[in-house]
Amino acid sequence: MVIKAGIIGSTGYAGQELVRLLLQHKEAEIIWYGSKSYVDEKFSRVFGNMFQIVENLCQGDDLHTLCREADVIFTATPQGYLASVIDEEILSQCKVIDLSADFRIKDVAVYEKWYGIQHKSSQFIEEAVYGLCELNREKIRGARLVANPGCYPTCSTLAIAPMVREGYIDTKTLVIDAKSGTSGAGRGAKVPNLYCEVNENIKAYGVTSHRHTPEIEEQLSYAAGEPVMLNFTPHLVPMNRGILITAYANLKPGVTKEMVYDAYQKAYKEEYFVRVLEEGTCPETRWVEGSNFVDVCPKVDERTGRVIMMGAMDNITKGAAGQAVQNMNILFGLDETEGLRLVPVFP
Amino acid sequence: MVIKAGIIGSTGYAGQELVRLLLQHKEAEIIWYGSKSYVDEKFSRVFGNMFQIVENLCQGDDLHTLCREADVIFTATPQGYLASVIDEEILSQCKVIDLSADFRIKDVAVYEKWYGIQHKSSQFIEEAVYGLCELNREKIRGARLVANPGCYPTCSTLAIAPMVREGYIDTKTLVIDAKSGTSGAGRGAKVPNLYCEVNENIKAYGVTSHRHTPEIEEQLSYAAGEPVMLNFTPHLVPMNRGILITAYANLKPGVTKEMVYDAYQKAYKEEYFVRVLEEGTCPETRWVEGSNFVDVCPKVDERTGRVIMMGAMDNITKGAAGQAVQNMNILFGLDETEGLRLVPVFP
Amino acid sequence: MVIKAGIIGSTGYAGQELVRLLLQHKEAEIIWYGSKSYVDEKFSRVFGNMFQIVENLCQGDDLHTLCREADVIFTATPQGYLASVIDEEILSQCKVIDLSADFRIKDVAVYEKWYGIQHKSSQFIEEAVYGLCELNREKIRGARLVANPGCYPTCSTLAIAPMVREGYIDTKTLVIDAKSGTSGAGRGAKVPNLYCEVNENIKAYGVTSHRHTPEIEEQLSYAAGEPVMLNFTPHLVPMNRGILITAYANLKPGVTKEMVYDAYQKAYKEEYFVRVLEEGTCPETRWVEGSNFVDVCPKVDERTGRVIMMGAMDNITKGAAGQAVQNMNILFGLDETEGLRLVPVFP
Amino acid sequence: MVIKAGIIGSTGYAGQELVRLLLQHKEAEIIWYGSKSYVDEKFSRVFGNMFQIVENLCQGDDLHTLCREADVIFTATPQGYLASVIDEEILSQCKVIDLSADFRIKDVAVYEKWYGIQHKSSQFIEEAVYGLCELNREKIRGARLVANPGCYPTCSTLAIAPMVREGYIDTKTLVIDAKSGTSGAGRGAKVPNLYCEVNENIKAYGVTSHRHTPEIEEQLSYAAGEPVMLNFTPHLVPMNRGILITAYANLKPGVTKEMVYDAYQKAYKEEYFVRVLEEGTCPETRWVEGSNFVDVCPKVDERTGRVIMMGAMDNITKGAAGQAVQNMNILFGLDETEGLRLVPVFP
Repeated sequence: MVIKAGIIGSTGYAGQELVRLLLQHKEAEIIWYGSKSYVDEKFSRVFGNMFQIVENLCQGDDLHTLCREADVIFTATPQGYLASVIDEEILSQCKVIDLSADFRIKDVAVYEKWYGIQHKSSQFIEEAVYGLCELNREKIRGARLVANPGCYPTCSTLAIAPMVREGYIDTKTLVIDAKSGTSGAGRGAKVPNLYCEVNENIKAYGVTSHRHTPEIEEQLSYAAGEPVMLNFTPHLVPMNRGILITAYANLKPGVTKEMVYDAYQKAYKEEYFVRVLEEGTCPETRWVEGSNFVDVCPKVDERTGRVIMMGAMDNITKGAAGQAVQNMNILFGLDETEGLRLVPVFP
Repeated sequence: MVIKAGIIGSTGYAGQELVRLLLQHKEAEIIWYGSKSYVDEKFSRVFGNMFQIVENLCQGDDLHTLCREADVIFTATPQGYLASVIDEEILSQCKVIDLSADFRIKDVAVYEKWYGIQHKSSQFIEEAVYGLCELNREKIRGARLVANPGCYPTCSTLAIAPMVREGYIDTKTLVIDAKSGTSGAGRGAKVPNLYCEVNENIKAYGVTSHRHTPEIEEQLSYAAGEPVMLNFTPHLVPMNRGILITAYANLKPGVTKEMVYDAYQKAYKEEYFVRVLEEGTCPETRWVEGSNFVDVCPKVDERTGRVIMMGAMDNITKGAAGQAVQNMNILFGLDETEGLRLVPVFP
Repeated sequence: MVIKAGIIGSTGYAGQELVRLLLQHKEAEIIWYGSKSYVDEKFSRVFGNMFQIVENLCQGDDLHTLCREADVIFTATPQGYLASVIDEEILSQCKVIDLSADFRIKDVAVYEKWYGIQHKSSQFIEEAVYGLCELNREKIRGARLVANPGCYPTCSTLAIAPMVREGYIDTKTLVIDAKSGTSGAGRGAKVPNLYCEVNENIKAYGVTSHRHTPEIEEQLSYAAGEPVMLNFTPHLVPMNRGILITAYANLKPGVTKEMVYDAYQKAYKEEYFVRVLEEGTCPETRWVEGSNFVDVCPKVDERTGRVIMMGAMDNITKGAAGQAVQNMNILFGLDETEGLRLVPVFP
Repeated sequence: MVIKAGIIGSTGYAGQELVRLLLQHKEAEIIWYGSKSYVDEKFSRVFGNMFQIVENLCQGDDLHTLCREADVIFTATPQGYLASVIDEEILSQCKVIDLSADFRIKDVAVYEKWYGIQHKSSQFIEEAVYGLCELNREKIRGARLVANPGCYPTCSTLAIAPMVREGYIDTKTLVIDAKSGTSGAGRGAKVPNLYCEVNENIKAYGVTSHRHTPEIEEQLSYAAGEPVMLNFTPHLVPMNRGILITAYANLKPGVTKEMVYDAYQKAYKEEYFVRVLEEGTCPETRWVEGSNFVDVCPKVDERTGRVIMMGAMDNITKGAAGQAVQNMNILFGLDETEGLRLVPVFP
């Protein structure tokens, strides 16, 4: 049986990446190319790479019709959208994997504060499962609604969790400096995202206020078993794809270089998609481009007593569409790597 | 039976792309990662994308040993190398697909003039088959030695051949203006290929003297049934991958817009990898990146009586490694698209 | 006496470059920062490079007020705007240098056909002087209204005119293949100009229909003394600044390599801004970035009997704002290079 | 009197920028274009932007001859070079501004440990003045030997010093995350600096071991009045020019947002080249490109009690050649901004 998948928001960058991945997935078939802006246009006129591969027209966003035809719905939609339409009828008929932030944060007050919008379906927050596959695999298996993690939270959590879980770092000293390619800014027509504005430039943005902050804090708090508060500063990099995380924290007394590296090895030795690099190697976004890998590596500074935790990932694959497919694989009992054994494209 | 493939020159950009493609090919297995510069180093230390995917060490370039173990050898080596080592012993034991220019040009004098080197194995030139799959499929099938076409010649020939074959253009007016991403310049450490020299720049190079000129002329001459001489001007573009061809020629009297477009449709209607775009659409390299597609489209200028023939392609996939795998598929009787149904990666 | 300059459209890329140049001009002062979109905002909030350099607020576009205060008005505005407002009152009080296309083309029917809009002030077309300084210097001197040339026409005309003027080429065979950085597309918020759409891509656009075609044809017709019709194909390159022209034409019988090169030397030996490169050198956009230079060089192909005429220029300096300042210098009797002896910025 | 300047190492990126700046400096003249690799070649063949601007040939590196002809020598040379040749004879005849690290660090043991080379002229370390103009102006005035600061140290020190000097932050919590354009890697022909290796990638490098660490620590220690030890992590960004500093530290109890911002205003209110941005604005490298400005701005996070200190600068202007010219201006009693009132080039 082939999984019937519908995509709401298929004409954004994450939605289009979902299309790319699902087309190369043996057990799934796309039955719905949802798009608010391009209804009735050929999908392949919006994305010329799909010419002669996808013949479908873009459709609307009627989830109530779609849920009767689809086994799974992916929503790659603006914040607040899914919360405004989801209901028991939809959830009782098909799985939903939401790439927006609507169901990622358990505390609705925190969501509403950082996102500045009212949550329209808080009754489903409790039930939703945070879809960071490597950490929540078991819970995802039986879920109806998966909150697919944000790009920065995925890379940050995977790069830092081993240290937090082992209690090796003082979480009060944690600082995350993140860098992202421009596809993370979406396909909206805005002056700051124009080629000439982004090219030959680097800048921080959302300093102290980026919405992924509480999401990262929540996940690391679970790993730590205590509340974690941190600084998270994203930067916009002139490249298409990729996220790099450079995180800093003080090591607790007695924690050695060996203990640190071993903790990463232990945490990820069974994980296909998380590659712990050889000691002394720095992750680079070029080595994961187009794939679902996350490369991580710690580096201890014995002089200052800090550990630098680094991670690299493709923001629209493992950071969005790839992880969404990985979640689908878990939900439907498939091999978790099905359709995702992509060799990174270089150069 | 899985095809055993050896790669000589696996640590250049084309060689590494061969590795990426063969790893995702169901019927082939790489048994030899040849590299002059990195013998005994782990291949994945040279290309971090291969970490935990390829465990092999780089090996030398002993074709006589390799030919006894491999079913096919790919040589992604500098001009003149294969000609200096190939012999009957190798060819009698395995297939050879040569990504260099050594056996592409039938007239050895032309080769020696444009390449400025003496050909060491001219006895095999006659036998070698020019591996432009869409044009030479039948001849490739039985070959022992396939001369995998150059990147510019592949894109140029496929973009122009329909016009030449139909006799629709005056070949004496043919001008090809080509643009290539920088991976085409190879991985050699040279100042002109440094990031800061290439970035924020465009330039022509090899004007009137680029070595792909006679190769294009030869192939178009076959298509025309008469000698073709043309201008070919490549340009270096600040991007990693992609070739764009913009070719100009005078239409012969009586040739209409409809006849021109129909000729392309007719030429490629059975071809999976050559996509004739909808009329009025210009090929763009971003729509083929990472794939084996060639997008072509003509545009007739009724005002001037010319046709502009355009083609876009990924220079290291269809322009090198992808076509090499396509040739392997033909040589071994596989579905020609095996391992090559790659959806282009965007953005 | 310092020249009082007003800029209408100062918040586009060309307008902002005008600001940069005029700020470094000893004899001019900017008294008006016009901008439709940012009235009453600080100019330096729109362009952070101007922080603490320009304290002015953006103003509206009231040319009738401005013309009483300014000695010269630069209009860096959309096509049709200046034609819709200009009148004798404005022209009798100050000089106008128009960076739009409104007064570049002498035949109003040609203008209306290629631009698809009606010309609202055709009575001033006759009087307007085409401001390609190196060719029209004497006429510019006494003008009231200067039509500042388009970017592609400036580079194309300067790169080709010497051949046409000497009668060395068959103009019926002339083909211009042009490549431009993305600042040429302007600062409007459109999806095709987003970073991720332009980056890692090259494409042709406006094939057979680009509006600069008739402008180039008109100027080359003057140089030839007979009507010139040609193909002009622009391409969008992933870089901020720069235009490269690669033009092709058949040489007339008897024209030698020496004659060709000498024609360029002769044409430009007195010109500061046009640099005829050493024989065999190809112009590159990186060598002119941020400056008012145009680098040109021909290359004869004796094999095919063609000459390849190449030119490189910064599209928003010599191709727009720099040439506008050069025109101002001529209009006001200053040294033509005042404020423009900028050393190109590399890398 | 015009200052006669000689440049040793004029064919690197910093050396070439020195040429650009000195050519536009009214009071200086370049009399010597030193270059180890290009002796007797025309300088403008190495850097095409200088065509028809610089007619000189490259010369060798004989400082003893040069010191008799020049008023000032700039050495933009590899680490250890100046220390191996400098002597009293040179210093007694002309000023030396060293762009290498040889005389930046007062403790020779620290220098030798981080740079891994023996210092050959430690007798001049004491006398050398660290040329961070905004901090050391008075000492520079009378110096014979100026140690021009490193790029990262310039931006880091200017961005952080106000906080340290006021005692507003706990220096033990200081972490500097830095990002640089690729010109900082120099013009050497190395695989990691090739276009295709740098483009579409971001990576950290020199983690815990970058040589600029002790230089930053030393300067901030002076400002703090106590030893400062910190983490400094540079990243390579796919762009030509620009450095961005994002630094983090805990605020001391009672320090408010207003106090923080005021400290920056106070520190730099008289400084032309240091621009304290409006509160809430993040520095961006595009706004300083090609200029000698450093844009700084702090952002207080009341939630976490940290301050994020940000700075942006052009790494080869203020980070190398621009500051060197600023030092020359101070040494010779000129207006400090002479030749440096460059408006940043955008886009």
